[in-house]
Amino acid sequence: MEGKIQNAVQDYYPDDFAWCYGCGRQNESGHHFRTVWLGEQTVTIYTPKQEHTAIPGFVYGGLIASLIDCHGTGSAALALHRKNGHEIGDGTEPARFVTASLKVDFVKPTPLGVPLKAVGTVQEIHPKKWKVDVEVFVNDDVCARGEVVAVVMPSTFVKKD
Amino acid sequence: MEGKIQNAVQDYYPDDFAWCYGCGRQNESGHHFRTVWLGEQTVTIYTPKQEHTAIPGFVYGGLIASLIDCHGTGSAALALHRKNGHEIGDGTEPARFVTASLKVDFVKPTPLGVPLKAVGTVQEIHPKKWKVDVEVFVNDDVCARGEVVAVVMPSTFVKKD
Repeated sequence: MEGKIQNAVQDYYPDDFAWCYGCGRQNESGHHFRTVWLGEQTVTIYTPKQEHTAIPGFVYGGLIASLIDCHGTGSAALALHRKNGHEIGDGTEPARFVTASLKVDFVKPTPLGVPLKAVGTVQEIHPKKWKVDVEVFVNDDVCARGEVVAVVMPSTFVKKD
Repeated sequence: MEGKIQNAVQDYYPDDFAWCYGCGRQNESGHHFRTVWLGEQTVTIYTPKQEHTAIPGFVYGGLIASLIDCHGTGSAALALHRKNGHEIGDGTEPARFVTASLKVDFVKPTPLGVPLKAVGTVQEIHPKKWKVDVEVFVNDDVCARGEVVAVVMPSTFVKKD
């Protein structure tokens, strides 16, 4: 299912900012999370690898936190892009967000070996600061809930030569 | 420096519960975070790999969240073990904690290529539930602050055959 998703926001991040271990298309070692609209919500689907173990049979919490994190920044980028009158794939680059804060409640042990679905609900706090509420599902079960506050990438993230 | 640390709590988790991607000694693909006492506080030191990039030159937030997560559960295990009259390496196994909730504030961009030092302050909420406040340093700069609520691993984490 993951392979069929078209027009993920991460497919259109500027090349220089597409190296994220979680969601950068240019990071060969990374997870390659990809985030799309699902009606008025957003979704990222990802199947953890066997190595992403916490206790045997269950998914590592740090991977779930990573999924929520990148889903949050990706969702904020989608939302600002739409607010600006654009859709992904229309030839314009979405803004790149980074995470100001991340909160995760682990609701129940998350079984390993099946797809996780992160669903986001996006809310504008400020033109450059968005809050994304995230639920992570396995089938119809909510296994984790998260909240991401994402901000448009500040200039402190640009390396000085 | 990481190689010289003795008596990390993760060195003594029961074999069946030492597979965590973040801190399990048996997970060949994982980060192998190792947590020790530092006076009345706890510390985990880890140097991210080049692939653990967010924006080029800076550490991926999901890796920082993972470090805080495992440092939290490891610190809780250290604290309960000491409360029970034991020290790591005295021949007794520490309890295995899992994460109930995780909160991370990303204070400033975290430079890649240098060691991160997570320092924890542990507080008992309940005999089976501990809160760990974590600061992640690069040299003397706090780059992230976290809070982990860790609970003794419940029976729902034991796979049914």
